[in-house]
Amino acid sequence: MRSFGSDNHSGIHPSILEAISKANVDHDLSYGDDKYTQIAKQKFCELFGDVEVFFTFNGTGANVTSLGSAIKSHNSIICTESAHINVDECGAPEKLTGSKLIAISTPDGKLTPELIKPKLTGFGFCHHSQPKIISITQTTELGTLYSLSEIKAIADLAHSYDMYLHVDGARFSNSIAALGCTAKDFAATGVDVLSFGGTKNGLMLGEAVVFFNKNMCGDFQYIRKQSMQLYSKMRFISAQFITYLEDNLWLKLATQANDMAVYLFEQLKDIECITITQQPAANAIFLILPKDKKEIIRDQYFFYDWDEATDEIRFMTSFDTTKDDIDSLIAFIRSQCN
Amino acid sequence: MRSFGSDNHSGIHPSILEAISKANVDHDLSYGDDKYTQIAKQKFCELFGDVEVFFTFNGTGANVTSLGSAIKSHNSIICTESAHINVDECGAPEKLTGSKLIAISTPDGKLTPELIKPKLTGFGFCHHSQPKIISITQTTELGTLYSLSEIKAIADLAHSYDMYLHVDGARFSNSIAALGCTAKDFAATGVDVLSFGGTKNGLMLGEAVVFFNKNMCGDFQYIRKQSMQLYSKMRFISAQFITYLEDNLWLKLATQANDMAVYLFEQLKDIECITITQQPAANAIFLILPKDKKEIIRDQYFFYDWDEATDEIRFMTSFDTTKDDIDSLIAFIRSQCN
Amino acid sequence: MRSFGSDNHSGIHPSILEAISKANVDHDLSYGDDKYTQIAKQKFCELFGDVEVFFTFNGTGANVTSLGSAIKSHNSIICTESAHINVDECGAPEKLTGSKLIAISTPDGKLTPELIKPKLTGFGFCHHSQPKIISITQTTELGTLYSLSEIKAIADLAHSYDMYLHVDGARFSNSIAALGCTAKDFAATGVDVLSFGGTKNGLMLGEAVVFFNKNMCGDFQYIRKQSMQLYSKMRFISAQFITYLEDNLWLKLATQANDMAVYLFEQLKDIECITITQQPAANAIFLILPKDKKEIIRDQYFFYDWDEATDEIRFMTSFDTTKDDIDSLIAFIRSQCN
Amino acid sequence: MRSFGSDNHSGIHPSILEAISKANVDHDLSYGDDKYTQIAKQKFCELFGDVEVFFTFNGTGANVTSLGSAIKSHNSIICTESAHINVDECGAPEKLTGSKLIAISTPDGKLTPELIKPKLTGFGFCHHSQPKIISITQTTELGTLYSLSEIKAIADLAHSYDMYLHVDGARFSNSIAALGCTAKDFAATGVDVLSFGGTKNGLMLGEAVVFFNKNMCGDFQYIRKQSMQLYSKMRFISAQFITYLEDNLWLKLATQANDMAVYLFEQLKDIECITITQQPAANAIFLILPKDKKEIIRDQYFFYDWDEATDEIRFMTSFDTTKDDIDSLIAFIRSQCN
Repeated sequence: MRSFGSDNHSGIHPSILEAISKANVDHDLSYGDDKYTQIAKQKFCELFGDVEVFFTFNGTGANVTSLGSAIKSHNSIICTESAHINVDECGAPEKLTGSKLIAISTPDGKLTPELIKPKLTGFGFCHHSQPKIISITQTTELGTLYSLSEIKAIADLAHSYDMYLHVDGARFSNSIAALGCTAKDFAATGVDVLSFGGTKNGLMLGEAVVFFNKNMCGDFQYIRKQSMQLYSKMRFISAQFITYLEDNLWLKLATQANDMAVYLFEQLKDIECITITQQPAANAIFLILPKDKKEIIRDQYFFYDWDEATDEIRFMTSFDTTKDDIDSLIAFIRSQCN
Repeated sequence: MRSFGSDNHSGIHPSILEAISKANVDHDLSYGDDKYTQIAKQKFCELFGDVEVFFTFNGTGANVTSLGSAIKSHNSIICTESAHINVDECGAPEKLTGSKLIAISTPDGKLTPELIKPKLTGFGFCHHSQPKIISITQTTELGTLYSLSEIKAIADLAHSYDMYLHVDGARFSNSIAALGCTAKDFAATGVDVLSFGGTKNGLMLGEAVVFFNKNMCGDFQYIRKQSMQLYSKMRFISAQFITYLEDNLWLKLATQANDMAVYLFEQLKDIECITITQQPAANAIFLILPKDKKEIIRDQYFFYDWDEATDEIRFMTSFDTTKDDIDSLIAFIRSQCN
Repeated sequence: MRSFGSDNHSGIHPSILEAISKANVDHDLSYGDDKYTQIAKQKFCELFGDVEVFFTFNGTGANVTSLGSAIKSHNSIICTESAHINVDECGAPEKLTGSKLIAISTPDGKLTPELIKPKLTGFGFCHHSQPKIISITQTTELGTLYSLSEIKAIADLAHSYDMYLHVDGARFSNSIAALGCTAKDFAATGVDVLSFGGTKNGLMLGEAVVFFNKNMCGDFQYIRKQSMQLYSKMRFISAQFITYLEDNLWLKLATQANDMAVYLFEQLKDIECITITQQPAANAIFLILPKDKKEIIRDQYFFYDWDEATDEIRFMTSFDTTKDDIDSLIAFIRSQCN
Repeated sequence: MRSFGSDNHSGIHPSILEAISKANVDHDLSYGDDKYTQIAKQKFCELFGDVEVFFTFNGTGANVTSLGSAIKSHNSIICTESAHINVDECGAPEKLTGSKLIAISTPDGKLTPELIKPKLTGFGFCHHSQPKIISITQTTELGTLYSLSEIKAIADLAHSYDMYLHVDGARFSNSIAALGCTAKDFAATGVDVLSFGGTKNGLMLGEAVVFFNKNMCGDFQYIRKQSMQLYSKMRFISAQFITYLEDNLWLKLATQANDMAVYLFEQLKDIECITITQQPAANAIFLILPKDKKEIIRDQYFFYDWDEATDEIRFMTSFDTTKDDIDSLIAFIRSQCN
């Protein structure tokens, strides 16, 4: 099976699996007191500067514990309507934090200070959930990308209201690859906390919560444990991250996924019966296929519907998507559409 | 002080206070096992038909326990962006139920099947909070009014999706007075549960959760207690409701408030410098005052800003608003605006 | 009906009802911005010293919002097994705070440093809910009483662990009456926050959360609102408290209840067939009635079972219990037991 | 490092790692829609009979989602004071379910009907959290073991009160190995839901929630997702479980751990300066070492303190503990203690 459904349909990069295997010797302390976790944390500091890092099982876990570090239940979280935390976590943010999500409609999955400002009201008014954190997704759920200056503008807005900025970076690697900047450039935007994804880009599993604002994380170890995101045999996530960060593997894998998306886009845009609906920026392409061909194509090359009302679908590429995969998909679409 | 700020700026209707006083004899059982509570519940059945009724302290309490009877934390609640449960309860619905609010933007504070349907998605998809209850407000937070057939259409939609319909009736009395229908007519729309307000219409305090759908309320006694809405000396709320429902006091008080709003509207609409922003239907009028006169008028006749961005304000009348109150307000506005 | 079931079977003291009536003039601001609330808060400062005060509807509300001001969900609350917060609030503390109650078995409803210390473990260990607040009840649910030095010892212990001390004072008035000390003497013990009861001692309803430690209450207004304990027509609780604190009405009412309990105890202890099971200290007496007479007596003079396993029952006196009530009860018991 | 600290200090059994590696081919559907998950579920049905099975990341996740399937927030959970859910999950059960834990003190970590019955009170009384589930741990946190008839007695008690029985089986494999019974024998006791552990017995990570009572699990997929325990690349947990259940690997690994504990116990009991504090039944031994030797021994062979007050410590063996490990430990202890 070759799928364009999601980058979590891919497996484990061989180097990552080898890292797990190499860490599988002897006994070691659990819950992060092992030697691999210390090294992995150091690798993150080398990448981003002086940060605090904690590992979680999955992206929802990384997001919710990040948010939970910033807010109390009477606060609110500002995000887009299409945000993963708003539509794909079955209400975990509300349940775990007890707080309100303020979901803003956007054309492209990107918040802007202009969109956010009208929601920054009611401060000091006890009837109103107090806005405390803005959460953006990079790359967005719609496959679009914030520039660093766009992120900085939101961070500055947040800080001017004594609020925080969280970045859901399930596909953070793809964003850095797409922007062509460094991780330290990203850190310089003023982001407070980042969910740094691993699972969607070649890890077996594992996400990192990266606190640029170290004042936020005093309770994190308790929040993570109570949120059931503390892994006993932590070394096997940490070992993955060590390899992931070494020799820029994370960037190389993301670059491959992005390159394949560009390659796919280049082919798709010349097929007449197809409408591209979002400007692709990383490893997702949103498009409309001819109604009568959609299921025939899906049978061969799995993908998900994005918006059933508009017939919009999503193709995602992954670290292990190959040029052959794309060529084969395109050939099939052409055979159906022409 | 004569205020047009809110109907909770008014006090206690004399008959209601007398009811409290009359119930203040002897000892009686607590937590609703008293004789007044039994009578009050019977009165509600006479009014609405075969319903289950529970009393709470306040409107937020009535709303949240109603919603909590219908949903689990992985469900979602569909409401308007302007809904009290969305903007005026400091996130109590999210905190107490753990669920997500899906807030729909409306021009007039009213949901319609057309507005709701696009949100009824993701059923059976575990990543998505499962829609389970629609909550509308009657009269709405914007002073507008649903017709019975509009309510029925939403109830029918809800039921066709195995969902419930909740009505936040903090100003339910005003709506029945405005519609000129009976409480049983309302019951016939298919509403599942109603927060029936007392506090804003002459009670000292007290709201009733009225279950038309008696299948929903099996756990209500526990939900109310755990939600800290169970009053020990319950007889003093129940006694108020007995008097409130006797001789249609609830309707008479609401009619007075509504009539005063009509009277106020009739005067205001002829004042040139004033823009009325919502079609008034019960006891609230939304308008824009001249910028330079707003604070001068507020100093004399208290009111609240509704939307600082547009300078919209709200005048509310209450069961104890008099013709003199209106005349005096209008005279002052005219003196300032002309 | 004359009941010995609970002090919440009594009604409203006439002066309190009159206070409500007197406050029922004109319009006033809602949610505590009224003039009565300001005066009431001032009265509390006169009574206790420099405190912050907030009003809630009921005792569970006062307790849970107090606790919620002190803790995060990964903290724990230390209390007795018989504590109201542990057995009579249907899990509201757990639901609202998300935290763990550590319930300690006691013979007499009283915590001591010796009982508490073994629970003060696991600090800094993320698997363990972190102890953060000790909650005691004064007078206790078993009718017993802490001395001021006993409270001070617990406060000192709490503070030495960077923890707080909360006092559930649903019957705080009875305790001060019984101790013969002043409210300021109590404040000097180092208690951080007190649920000061009104409902059980002559108010129609209303409890005060009194923060001696003013550092704790920065978020209280939001916690109270989100906990659905914010009363819109607040003046009607505040007016009650003004009268309650004036001329020591609170103490006089509690003294009457206590005196009647002493009078009852004096009579009961000479009745052979009765076993007194707790040393009475305020307005509750715990005893065992002859098995075959219990229901006959309850039919006439209502009371509650305390422990069905041991047949222990509870008699409570109230601010409106009279000497005649006691004489009549005793005569009936004697007629049955001799 | 050879540790006796915990069975989660061990790594991944080679066959399990190989299973992960073998599943790492091609793309597959995520979130459990893959082919491995179907096979793994089938394997569980072969083992236990007709059950529903869901996988989670970790033991706390398995426990809390199990409990969450059975209860509402106004329910209570009955467990031992030493239960993992009570002392080692940082309050996750309270936070996620909103309910109360009723923790019973036991000498040996085992509940009995006699210990439980006094807590089964207050049914129908809305002030009281309603008991709804009993949770036992097999093998217990104190290394002891329930017989099947003991479990059946608790299951019968639970069912007679319309309650459920949950078994925290983080070390379930060790219990079956120790009892010498079959998994179907266990199923026949009437247990409703089991947390079946993998992580502590050779898996990289992964626990299975096994519903014998299939009526309980209608909402489980939402509960798991909202509890952040749904793994995207599920095939890599499922593949582990397939291998774990094949050829009784789970039992073989547990048997090895148990055998090593027996071997360790046999040696320890003859060392004079050591006191064994619990009758060992599976893979844990609780003992007291000489105070002045404890840290010297711990430096060489890691272990955890169990009760600092009594100096009790715990040795755990694991699937990969060898006879050499034991011999070496014993030799060192003897060298220190003689």
